[in-house]
Amino acid sequence: MKTTSEYQEFIENAIANLELPSTPKGLYQPILYSLESGGKRLRPVLTLAVADALGLDINLVVNQALGIELFHNFTLLHDDVMDNSEVRRGRPTVHCRWNARTAILSGDAMSIIAGQVMARGAGKSLDKILELFNKTAIEVIEGQQYDMDFEHRKDVTEDDYIEMVRLKTAVLLACACKTGALMAGADAQVADAFYDYGEKLGLAFQLRDDYLDTFGDPAIFGKAIGGDITSDKKTWLLINAIRDDKTGTIDKWLGVNARPADKVQEVTDCYRILNLDTRCSQLIDSYIEQAINQLNNIPGLSEEAREYFTKLADRSRTRSN
Amino acid sequence: MKTTSEYQEFIENAIANLELPSTPKGLYQPILYSLESGGKRLRPVLTLAVADALGLDINLVVNQALGIELFHNFTLLHDDVMDNSEVRRGRPTVHCRWNARTAILSGDAMSIIAGQVMARGAGKSLDKILELFNKTAIEVIEGQQYDMDFEHRKDVTEDDYIEMVRLKTAVLLACACKTGALMAGADAQVADAFYDYGEKLGLAFQLRDDYLDTFGDPAIFGKAIGGDITSDKKTWLLINAIRDDKTGTIDKWLGVNARPADKVQEVTDCYRILNLDTRCSQLIDSYIEQAINQLNNIPGLSEEAREYFTKLADRSRTRSN
Repeated sequence: MKTTSEYQEFIENAIANLELPSTPKGLYQPILYSLESGGKRLRPVLTLAVADALGLDINLVVNQALGIELFHNFTLLHDDVMDNSEVRRGRPTVHCRWNARTAILSGDAMSIIAGQVMARGAGKSLDKILELFNKTAIEVIEGQQYDMDFEHRKDVTEDDYIEMVRLKTAVLLACACKTGALMAGADAQVADAFYDYGEKLGLAFQLRDDYLDTFGDPAIFGKAIGGDITSDKKTWLLINAIRDDKTGTIDKWLGVNARPADKVQEVTDCYRILNLDTRCSQLIDSYIEQAINQLNNIPGLSEEAREYFTKLADRSRTRSN
Repeated sequence: MKTTSEYQEFIENAIANLELPSTPKGLYQPILYSLESGGKRLRPVLTLAVADALGLDINLVVNQALGIELFHNFTLLHDDVMDNSEVRRGRPTVHCRWNARTAILSGDAMSIIAGQVMARGAGKSLDKILELFNKTAIEVIEGQQYDMDFEHRKDVTEDDYIEMVRLKTAVLLACACKTGALMAGADAQVADAFYDYGEKLGLAFQLRDDYLDTFGDPAIFGKAIGGDITSDKKTWLLINAIRDDKTGTIDKWLGVNARPADKVQEVTDCYRILNLDTRCSQLIDSYIEQAINQLNNIPGLSEEAREYFTKLADRSRTRSN
């Protein structure tokens, strides 16, 4: 096994070497801009690490790792248009830097290129890889639709929310893991165990995101704290608070845009009174535990690999940005 | 060979039987709405007819025909958002009936479903089918980008325009034909001849569209005449008029939105004075001839099939809607 930084570096290299046509510029520049903007590269790291753990030369899975990262960045690009977000990873979003038409069309191209790259060098696994990828891609989009639907709903349950997160975020991490396993020629049990590992990791990852957006340290988190509260985003915290708060604090602030600092303060206090910070952390812990338990379903996994995936999961429990 | 109406009916049936998930409704209803709105189904008809001509049971290529129609309707859906068009085939566009976010996300799903359906039952042709489809999909999007770029350019040449149309429209017809051939197990010469047939047909088809938008009979054309002129769309007619008009008519009207009826009348008169109606028809004829000539490169093509594809091409020369 390599270190996560080494996998990240490998991916950054692959992105830098991705050969896109030079024209039409208006189509390909925004794609490069989106890809260059970094991020943790968690999904391709998972693909590489799983392949590596199962003894496959990671050069033989670089296209699939890249395809998943391309797809992920495509969803961010279109999500930013749909949510009218202005900043992504500290830079103007594509639709702000260019315009909405460019963002839509570049995203469309990126989605197709993702599928194209996924297929490269897939060899005899081609049909399995594409079946998983297409199924996952549709689920991610369904998740985004549910997320948008939730904006107008007050009756979202905790189960609804977890299912939305599973679709919008977790299945792509699961797909990233399983893709590495399939490319390495793993049998169904191993491939599915890695899928479940990725899925539980994804649920923990998104819940930690929700947690940090409210309880994080602004100096480390990398963006302003309280954005979810200001925008009434139906996070795990808010959904539980809507159900449990008897003080009227949530009712008072929902849909109110005035005095955002007061809103963030009072809603955060309400969350704390309801013990939601602790309960959220406990839920994250339980998903991390479920993820790590999946490693027991992988016969012959080396101690080194087990340790790698255990530590990776554990970092999601404690990460601050 | 069957008749075009029979192929169309076959496709309508396949669309009616396309099993999409029922939820989230906000995602799948707009997809069904787009698909149901009809149109000529030219692309899937080509796939079916080519497969049929080469002796393949058309049931074995229904998914590929459907996949191409899905992709085509996805591009229309997103084009309508980008162009802010309000009506498509006599009905409100998806982003007007719902909203832009819904149109973007449903289109994204439709694009992925198209790729998914293309792969179904492709068997041993899977890699060739997907390679062609992905390449074509990217080209169509590049064509749309060039079309958008042309809006802000005054120096678009006739060659630029033909290349844009080739990408935006013709390659998908070419892909539709070649897909039918590949699924039927045709060799490269036959598959490429059908590709070229579809490409030339596509060029003729788009030029006829340009022609009809200015010189068509509004009662038959199905939409208002002169829309391209009013919106200064860089059609073959306008590009040639910009180059050839010495009377100042084109310069006077470009970018002018007032008195649209006068604009349409004067610009159309200018086109006629420049003989562009005849020259456009001649160019269409030459592409139709090139398409029909490709049929000579297909050894063993039955007389019935030759006649079918000849008549199909000829109809694009004379069609009025």
